[in-house]
Amino acid sequence: MSGSSFGTLYRVSTFGESHCAGVGAIVDGCPPNLELSEADIQTQLTRRRPGQSKVNTPRDEKDQVRILSGVENGRTLGTPIGLFVANEDHRPKDYGEMSQIPRPSHADFTYQQKYGVRASSGGGRSSARETIGRVAAGAIAEKWLSETHGIEIVSWVSACGELELTDVNPDTISRADVDQNIIRCPHPILAEEMIQLVTTLREEGDSVGGVLTCVVRNCPAGWGEPVFDKLEAKLAQAMMSIPATKGFEIGSGFAAARMKGSAHNDAFVMKAGRLGTTTNYSGGIQGGISNGEPILFRLAIKPPATISKAQSTSTFEGDPAVLEAKGRHDPFVVNRAVPIVETMAALVLMDMALIQNSRK
Amino acid sequence: MSGSSFGTLYRVSTFGESHCAGVGAIVDGCPPNLELSEADIQTQLTRRRPGQSKVNTPRDEKDQVRILSGVENGRTLGTPIGLFVANEDHRPKDYGEMSQIPRPSHADFTYQQKYGVRASSGGGRSSARETIGRVAAGAIAEKWLSETHGIEIVSWVSACGELELTDVNPDTISRADVDQNIIRCPHPILAEEMIQLVTTLREEGDSVGGVLTCVVRNCPAGWGEPVFDKLEAKLAQAMMSIPATKGFEIGSGFAAARMKGSAHNDAFVMKAGRLGTTTNYSGGIQGGISNGEPILFRLAIKPPATISKAQSTSTFEGDPAVLEAKGRHDPFVVNRAVPIVETMAALVLMDMALIQNSRK
Amino acid sequence: MSGSSFGTLYRVSTFGESHCAGVGAIVDGCPPNLELSEADIQTQLTRRRPGQSKVNTPRDEKDQVRILSGVENGRTLGTPIGLFVANEDHRPKDYGEMSQIPRPSHADFTYQQKYGVRASSGGGRSSARETIGRVAAGAIAEKWLSETHGIEIVSWVSACGELELTDVNPDTISRADVDQNIIRCPHPILAEEMIQLVTTLREEGDSVGGVLTCVVRNCPAGWGEPVFDKLEAKLAQAMMSIPATKGFEIGSGFAAARMKGSAHNDAFVMKAGRLGTTTNYSGGIQGGISNGEPILFRLAIKPPATISKAQSTSTFEGDPAVLEAKGRHDPFVVNRAVPIVETMAALVLMDMALIQNSRK
Amino acid sequence: MSGSSFGTLYRVSTFGESHCAGVGAIVDGCPPNLELSEADIQTQLTRRRPGQSKVNTPRDEKDQVRILSGVENGRTLGTPIGLFVANEDHRPKDYGEMSQIPRPSHADFTYQQKYGVRASSGGGRSSARETIGRVAAGAIAEKWLSETHGIEIVSWVSACGELELTDVNPDTISRADVDQNIIRCPHPILAEEMIQLVTTLREEGDSVGGVLTCVVRNCPAGWGEPVFDKLEAKLAQAMMSIPATKGFEIGSGFAAARMKGSAHNDAFVMKAGRLGTTTNYSGGIQGGISNGEPILFRLAIKPPATISKAQSTSTFEGDPAVLEAKGRHDPFVVNRAVPIVETMAALVLMDMALIQNSRK
Repeated sequence: MSGSSFGTLYRVSTFGESHCAGVGAIVDGCPPNLELSEADIQTQLTRRRPGQSKVNTPRDEKDQVRILSGVENGRTLGTPIGLFVANEDHRPKDYGEMSQIPRPSHADFTYQQKYGVRASSGGGRSSARETIGRVAAGAIAEKWLSETHGIEIVSWVSACGELELTDVNPDTISRADVDQNIIRCPHPILAEEMIQLVTTLREEGDSVGGVLTCVVRNCPAGWGEPVFDKLEAKLAQAMMSIPATKGFEIGSGFAAARMKGSAHNDAFVMKAGRLGTTTNYSGGIQGGISNGEPILFRLAIKPPATISKAQSTSTFEGDPAVLEAKGRHDPFVVNRAVPIVETMAALVLMDMALIQNSRK
Repeated sequence: MSGSSFGTLYRVSTFGESHCAGVGAIVDGCPPNLELSEADIQTQLTRRRPGQSKVNTPRDEKDQVRILSGVENGRTLGTPIGLFVANEDHRPKDYGEMSQIPRPSHADFTYQQKYGVRASSGGGRSSARETIGRVAAGAIAEKWLSETHGIEIVSWVSACGELELTDVNPDTISRADVDQNIIRCPHPILAEEMIQLVTTLREEGDSVGGVLTCVVRNCPAGWGEPVFDKLEAKLAQAMMSIPATKGFEIGSGFAAARMKGSAHNDAFVMKAGRLGTTTNYSGGIQGGISNGEPILFRLAIKPPATISKAQSTSTFEGDPAVLEAKGRHDPFVVNRAVPIVETMAALVLMDMALIQNSRK
Repeated sequence: MSGSSFGTLYRVSTFGESHCAGVGAIVDGCPPNLELSEADIQTQLTRRRPGQSKVNTPRDEKDQVRILSGVENGRTLGTPIGLFVANEDHRPKDYGEMSQIPRPSHADFTYQQKYGVRASSGGGRSSARETIGRVAAGAIAEKWLSETHGIEIVSWVSACGELELTDVNPDTISRADVDQNIIRCPHPILAEEMIQLVTTLREEGDSVGGVLTCVVRNCPAGWGEPVFDKLEAKLAQAMMSIPATKGFEIGSGFAAARMKGSAHNDAFVMKAGRLGTTTNYSGGIQGGISNGEPILFRLAIKPPATISKAQSTSTFEGDPAVLEAKGRHDPFVVNRAVPIVETMAALVLMDMALIQNSRK
Repeated sequence: MSGSSFGTLYRVSTFGESHCAGVGAIVDGCPPNLELSEADIQTQLTRRRPGQSKVNTPRDEKDQVRILSGVENGRTLGTPIGLFVANEDHRPKDYGEMSQIPRPSHADFTYQQKYGVRASSGGGRSSARETIGRVAAGAIAEKWLSETHGIEIVSWVSACGELELTDVNPDTISRADVDQNIIRCPHPILAEEMIQLVTTLREEGDSVGGVLTCVVRNCPAGWGEPVFDKLEAKLAQAMMSIPATKGFEIGSGFAAARMKGSAHNDAFVMKAGRLGTTTNYSGGIQGGISNGEPILFRLAIKPPATISKAQSTSTFEGDPAVLEAKGRHDPFVVNRAVPIVETMAALVLMDMALIQNSRK
């Protein structure tokens, strides 16, 4: 339990730096007899891939997943599922001067402080490439949640810099809506403006942050474990563990701070045979347990730290230095985070589902 | 691991409903030979107590902690520390009609859905009284962190409804500053306005939310476990597990979404013999690991759900009903959350410290 | 996770030294709606109690358990169950010279080495009194296992020194059979011989070891988690965690080492509608998973280390010393271990049952 | 935590069936800056390999380990170490009639009962091939224990059927002594008799069990976590999780049951500057914590269940059937278990070492 595992019953352990043999995960606790093929997992891995469009870095990493174990004749055996994606180029790259200068707001300095050593290139475990293992594991969870409970998880880009999308119907939005454009903002006009902004920043050698919103539909009431493993608490951990995340909100979020109780309380009402609520400021969770309404949350993503613009900073020894990142870099990564957010949500929900199942 | 335990090496397990014999915690993994008395723990419990002022509920729960085990001759033995606070009145109270009507935005409905039963009164484990166990356990962690590393943790009310405090110096603010007034906002004039607002809302039978800010000073670089147990991820889980929390931000938080990388990156600079940063948008954490700068985070707290104002809602069976909470209720709880936030931060940090220690 | 917790879903955390306020446990993960009273737990605690007969120490510790939380109106709430037994005399006793001389084959020396401090008296957490928390928690598990699956767990003394009982029918032996005599050997004549042996040893100021056998009946096939949490592996951990245990055997045990495969293999055969085995050398477990046959295991218990006979040993500083334990001490503890073994088995089985449930 | 992970701080998660792409493990929590190459791991994997001699099955599985991640420039990074061994033939084999007839004393029946599905061939996770992941992970632990504490772990075959070796000096025996002959019994004459016995049994299509003894030298005092994670308890779990193990003894083991306290107690005495004991019936552990003396334990291994001799048994449906295993099978596996026992012991010790380190 030194940080690379997540979950109690549906337990994922990931491995892999950006320039070793590859990255992957072991999933322990997947129920048996789930139909599963590599294609089921590949869809989200491909959505996560860089180089998909002009707003992202043009590197083309194939990221083909291979199931190493745990599946036979197209069905899970109940045993650990090994998942592996080879690194195309696994020679440690020459990051040149960067080895002397810790990149500002990167993890070079903190890994060195923590371990007394760090991967010579590419960020090691702090690289975005690390997320491949989680996405693969979460894609399996998504399939199980969908088949057993009809659960749908959809995330989209709701802000890029100052450009913000607020009027989305969480009851109907689909992944197809989100994937209509390369920036994954389900509003064609705003999406175009966002693409324009990102293109401009790329030319300036700069980057920008953004916001992701996510909805989980059809989650039954009763999932989430009080006290420390409240559903929103585990979602918060999951989301804040995604690289570059700076904030998390459930339901009303920070807006709740300015509201009165009489306005914020979600009154109960009968809805198609189950007790629902008239409003959903709770974001689908009360007392740490799902209430049957859509689960709604948001994440803030900071601007990518790697920029081509010159930065005045220091070497590891404290000598003043100027850093200019070579090559092309993502000026915006929020759109690529969409499948990461969805699959991390799936990891949390599936674990909670199995724990709740155990009481039956 | 059904939700009431937290931590790997410094592991806290809490127990107790609001109307059983009492509430408390077991702390497993506290290092031996730490000087410890009940007084060390009582300070934060007393700060957490309701009934301290006119802005909070006037119930007077004494909340005297008793150390049941793990300490002899004023020093910890390295064995589990049992902590217990008796409930003054542990007869299940008559909550009358509330047993038929799930309180809006409370956990009555979700506990019933999850367990098929719920504590007949007072919210059971979803009650604020549950936090006593964590605060007691966290107070021990605070003492260890202070004695071994000089770590200081200070939280304060930075917003009450629309009233917001932004100019606080995180390098110098102290608990004495915070406790100068009953609302725990370290700005006398703003504090007075907040008290006025809360008093008015009490008269109206309504409530209001707010924001807490917290700083951790003197945390050494190197704490936090990649990938899933990043320091900000565990802090997020810890804070989002506090009842009524709706949002969490580290460093720049949601503001990061609107920033450019060239503005957001924290450049490195030599500071009194260690490599520090010129700005702190990272909030003291990079790549999930502390970097030696102050750790800064914020939480949004929703308005208390229990209000005297009449609310139109439904019974468990779905019949329309009107609910009016009897008695006096807290219109504002953010000030009482101050010691909870500080001690939860201590629980996270101490666990991370011990894990990092193990590598030495 | 520093040693005082056990289980994943049915998770027990114990606390308490022999001379602090008391001992107890928190049980997290007990399913809701189980009928439960203190009387349900007391039976096994009373069977565990010292001072029950002339073969054990005549101290009379009342050991009345109190349920602190998690139960309302006679039913479990699904929340943590706090369990507490006060120590009658919780002033650290004067163990005199023992504080300078580590008791041979006791834990005085190792606790001091591990923690740099130790409870001043009575063995602290290494005392038999520590087992109260487990027995209380396990008694709840026994009730759940019995009510949900009809599971019966019976343990007995099968050896006292050289006196050995081999012909017991594991299909029919009951706790009533075992409790017919004070030494808990379900064979009246042999029991009498054992009592005679123990009485003689008491007079000599010496002690003797023994063997416990245990059977679990009606355990369904399918419990136990490969690979590391095989059912026999978790039983072994559970049993070897009981103070004074030196060995564990499942099914054929060490006798298997001398057998041929053709003799040891348990052939399958239809039994009342389910596939069973003609023999049970496997002890009810194959590949780490229960097969529906009775689970059979044995434990070796060493002679109590505290004896009145003078022992030549050393002080902590290494100076030669002679130790003579004052007071009266148990010359035989295997009979008192009966309820500990049964309840520890219940802790393992219930956890495995809940994990297996989660897959349904 | 569904069974395929082991350890708290040095945490191993294994994966792989006998006929999928391969088997392996992820090690999370290995300290950084340990020199490590594939050769360091290969030695124990090669000792574990079948087909090494006439007493074992002649299949030649190369079992070359590949480090997938966590190591750069010959040193560990502190990040998860991925370990992989490809299966030479990963097409599910034709096990013919065995798919209808559960093999007696194998796990075919219990896996089917547990999961409702099972690997179509070769035993899946219950196959001996599963142990590759543990051995690889444990070999790294052995290296760390050796380099940081000079710890030596040596296991040997001390019984094969009725043939038993008792006079081994645990203070001096080495792996070189053990590997002098193919049956790994460090007594040339007895070894020859054992080889003769196994050869005869092979001709008869039968098999035989045996006993392994293991010593750990130079383990410092203070390792092991009371109460449930006592050092002997975790060793017991580790050893009983090895396929085919039926019994575990620490120190005096079952012999303790027949001893008097006055004979069994290990008196303290000064030894080269540290407090040691004159005898070692405790097996190096008191109160669950190492005392600095050699740790000594034994395991009973049952005769291999797969034999060529015809066996009368039943099909899954309960119809009488006769099973004759085709091909050549190991009549004795205790010698191959030697590196498994050593590396499992290393997994336990390293985890305990890191936990104890965290207190410093």
